[in-house]
Amino acid sequence: MAPAPTLDSAKPAVIRLHPHDNVIIALQDLSAGTLLPQIGAPLLQAVPRGHKIACAPIVQGAQVIRYGQIIGVATLPVAAGDHVHVHNLGMGAHDQDYAFSSDLRPLPAIDGPRYFMGYPRDDGQVGTRNYLGILTSVNCSGSVARFIAEAVERQGWLADFPHVDGVVPIVHGSGCGMSGKDEGYATLFRTLQGYARNPNFGGILLVGLGCEVMQIPDLIGTGRMRGDGNFRYMTIQQTGGTRKTIERGVAVLREMAEVANRVQRQPAGLQHLMIGMQCGGSDGYSGITANPALGAASDLLVAHGGTTILSETSEIYGAEHLLTRRAVTPEVGAKIVERIRWWEDYTARNGGEMDNNPSPGNKKGGLTTILEKSLGAVAKGGTAPLTQVYKFAEPITERGFVFMDSPGYDPCSVTGQIASGANLIAFTTGRGSVSGYKPTPCIKLATNSEMYGRMSEDMDVNCGDIIDGVTIEAKAREIFELFIRVASGEQTKSEELGFGGAEFVPWQMGAVM
Amino acid sequence: MAPAPTLDSAKPAVIRLHPHDNVIIALQDLSAGTLLPQIGAPLLQAVPRGHKIACAPIVQGAQVIRYGQIIGVATLPVAAGDHVHVHNLGMGAHDQDYAFSSDLRPLPAIDGPRYFMGYPRDDGQVGTRNYLGILTSVNCSGSVARFIAEAVERQGWLADFPHVDGVVPIVHGSGCGMSGKDEGYATLFRTLQGYARNPNFGGILLVGLGCEVMQIPDLIGTGRMRGDGNFRYMTIQQTGGTRKTIERGVAVLREMAEVANRVQRQPAGLQHLMIGMQCGGSDGYSGITANPALGAASDLLVAHGGTTILSETSEIYGAEHLLTRRAVTPEVGAKIVERIRWWEDYTARNGGEMDNNPSPGNKKGGLTTILEKSLGAVAKGGTAPLTQVYKFAEPITERGFVFMDSPGYDPCSVTGQIASGANLIAFTTGRGSVSGYKPTPCIKLATNSEMYGRMSEDMDVNCGDIIDGVTIEAKAREIFELFIRVASGEQTKSEELGFGGAEFVPWQMGAVM
Ligand SMILES: [Ca+2]
Ligand SMILES: [Ca+2]
Ligand SMILES: [Ca+2]
Ligand SMILES: [Ca+2]
Ligand SMILES: [Ca+2]
Repeated sequence: MAPAPTLDSAKPAVIRLHPHDNVIIALQDLSAGTLLPQIGAPLLQAVPRGHKIACAPIVQGAQVIRYGQIIGVATLPVAAGDHVHVHNLGMGAHDQDYAFSSDLRPLPAIDGPRYFMGYPRDDGQVGTRNYLGILTSVNCSGSVARFIAEAVERQGWLADFPHVDGVVPIVHGSGCGMSGKDEGYATLFRTLQGYARNPNFGGILLVGLGCEVMQIPDLIGTGRMRGDGNFRYMTIQQTGGTRKTIERGVAVLREMAEVANRVQRQPAGLQHLMIGMQCGGSDGYSGITANPALGAASDLLVAHGGTTILSETSEIYGAEHLLTRRAVTPEVGAKIVERIRWWEDYTARNGGEMDNNPSPGNKKGGLTTILEKSLGAVAKGGTAPLTQVYKFAEPITERGFVFMDSPGYDPCSVTGQIASGANLIAFTTGRGSVSGYKPTPCIKLATNSEMYGRMSEDMDVNCGDIIDGVTIEAKAREIFELFIRVASGEQTKSEELGFGGAEFVPWQMGAVM
Repeated sequence: MAPAPTLDSAKPAVIRLHPHDNVIIALQDLSAGTLLPQIGAPLLQAVPRGHKIACAPIVQGAQVIRYGQIIGVATLPVAAGDHVHVHNLGMGAHDQDYAFSSDLRPLPAIDGPRYFMGYPRDDGQVGTRNYLGILTSVNCSGSVARFIAEAVERQGWLADFPHVDGVVPIVHGSGCGMSGKDEGYATLFRTLQGYARNPNFGGILLVGLGCEVMQIPDLIGTGRMRGDGNFRYMTIQQTGGTRKTIERGVAVLREMAEVANRVQRQPAGLQHLMIGMQCGGSDGYSGITANPALGAASDLLVAHGGTTILSETSEIYGAEHLLTRRAVTPEVGAKIVERIRWWEDYTARNGGEMDNNPSPGNKKGGLTTILEKSLGAVAKGGTAPLTQVYKFAEPITERGFVFMDSPGYDPCSVTGQIASGANLIAFTTGRGSVSGYKPTPCIKLATNSEMYGRMSEDMDVNCGDIIDGVTIEAKAREIFELFIRVASGEQTKSEELGFGGAEFVPWQMGAVM
């Protein structure tokens, strides 16, 4: 008899992604007959790296659980040690059943309240940064917004305001050449209003051209754009051109800096932390390292009273049935379904379709069902109950784990999260995304050690060592502690590098006219 | 008998926009009975400012001519001195009849060839500027492109290359989160390729992230992105992150600056000038001052062998029948019609519609028909034959007066014109647009003296004095001479102010995913 196949014993052979799972994932190519301590039987077939192995018997028709969540049902009887894939795993009737609010789980226990050092705002929000923003109603005022920020920098007086983090021009490509009454207009409108309100700004100067569709009086409305009143606006046409607008803009910002500088960091409960979660340039490790680790960190923050935002609707498509199960009420669950239907219409009228099914390459890598694939993205949302569903850039008022509709496209999705109120971003990446999102700091979580080694100057946390045996729980704790430090002022890698001047990308919809 | 109504005699009472016109435009509110030297009879009715007066009898059914072009037909007999408006002017059957190539007019006579001093390129194009461009395939490399340009500026070595105008990062909001095969992808693809080829660049560094939909190998294809070979590319992921990409980008640009600096300005015939014409923030004067003056300047340039580009399809909608008449062949005319049909579909599938009909406000201001309103925009295209019709950002290869399809939205339309090859932009504005479009200089033509006075630091030419008696022909000559000086290196107002870093706005189509 041949000897039992040998393993690279310096590295774990398999990983279990959640205590409730009945499948584990091979981290190496494993031969038939391999003995694994996690399973009471030798492998019944060879299992390639990234594929699933049953760690307990699963009767035909029973649910297969990965990430602590349903990825399908056994279409045949499955024994412990069986390779689980397209031959014995299918969708079942799961995709027909939203089962609203049927899977509400308790949050992890916490030791006691935790705090971060933040900037309290008059409206009750707390900033993790204290920037002055120059918001633009239209692309046509974008250059002048930048000129104002450059003039402030040249003059050097920001050094007199140690509690102000800087002046940030928020420039984009839209605001005119559009209908003034459609969904695209409403979306940009919410986005601009949301930025004006974000607690990481200590004051906002809104600069327009004058003749644009996105009119400043409409944006301001009858109320004020900021609860603290540290808000001013001007148009280039009314002010008399570029040079005069720069001059007046700089003078106004200096007055606003006086006000913003009076706010200082104070202890704030974690209920004031709102973290936008994001995934960009994902790879085969995203779903087994960084995303589950972020999900567990999300559960920790939610247990402490904080808020985490899942988005990227196009990437969770097919796993919406799991979010509806976690919805605190059927009404909240129905909002997820409404957004999914909206997306099907949105892509259809743009000549495309929603399709998140595993590709041949996905299947080769071990992903079997659309649920499982989408769960790779949903995994960063942990297991906490879903307390509310929001449209893109809509103000988030509920605490806990929430969903904000957005494309998967990173800069656009993060823009919506910040407009909705995010004061921190947590961003998992496999290929290595480099980006920042002023005024909100962005923590980069690398999914694999190879990329982390190559791009460590851009990455804040290596989640690749989960493959080497670091537990998801330990990694989640590391991420959670970093949340608190960054929220309290510790600079992220992307902040040190100066990112955040190009990544304001409102979701553009509708015809450009 | 009452005395003849008096006029503000310091200012002209009326203006004739073209020698062939049978209507003239009131520049003041005129009372019935006013005697005008242009008409052999007193005014038969009161005529408000901006409205039309027949300067000769027009028989019922005959064409009414403004801008030297048909704006409709007389629905009643019209006498010299009659107010011409909705009561006696209608569309007739004109809107049913494309009459391809039926109105080909001779160009103005020229004194002899003229030259500008430009940068000759290997592919036969001639630049009016000599920039190094940092092109980005995706928003995710935008910040790094800016960091590279900033590092070059900080290091100061550009001073060693006196024939290089600077380093321009070309940053945008798209390139990923999109289909890789639809019209939106093809449009961005053409736009990026077109910028790489624009003769105002002496070299291009293309920077990508690595995992984006808009892949650099696809952009480069089997050929080269630039005929002169002064082209390099890199991705941030392959180069190993932000700092290494900045370091390598700066080193590569220094090598490219050596090459670009060898090119020097030389005399070039006006057949090498390609001017994108644009109108932004138009007002009641646009159609009677700056636009007709630019149109006459366009005719002058075309007579000298040069190329002018009319665009802004949504703003010429309704006047396409005049462009089809000017098309050199029915095939070229049919392309205009095809674009108009495409726009009707594009706006419909985005839940809108094409509608350029005169609004109640337009009518109060004196505009009667959709032809007349659209002609205000078409007027900047002069009267030269239409030699070809192009899609947005398609390479322009024909000389003479051409059309490139685009939205009316200024930064987007100009972006397409530059991608198509424009080495100069001429931009009329009534409300006062401030913008620049590196690498291509932009000449601002003010439509009225009030705005020019208020924003003269941003405006290159005041066309408002046409109201005071300066002829359109004289103004056209002034603009034409400025074309040659700016093409030869004279800085425009927007260049002096440093514009051009925020106005790259590719036409975004399709769903953001
Ligand atoms: Ca500071
Ligand atoms: Ca993604
Ligand atoms: Ca994403
Ligand atoms: Ca120079
Ligand atoms: Ca325009």
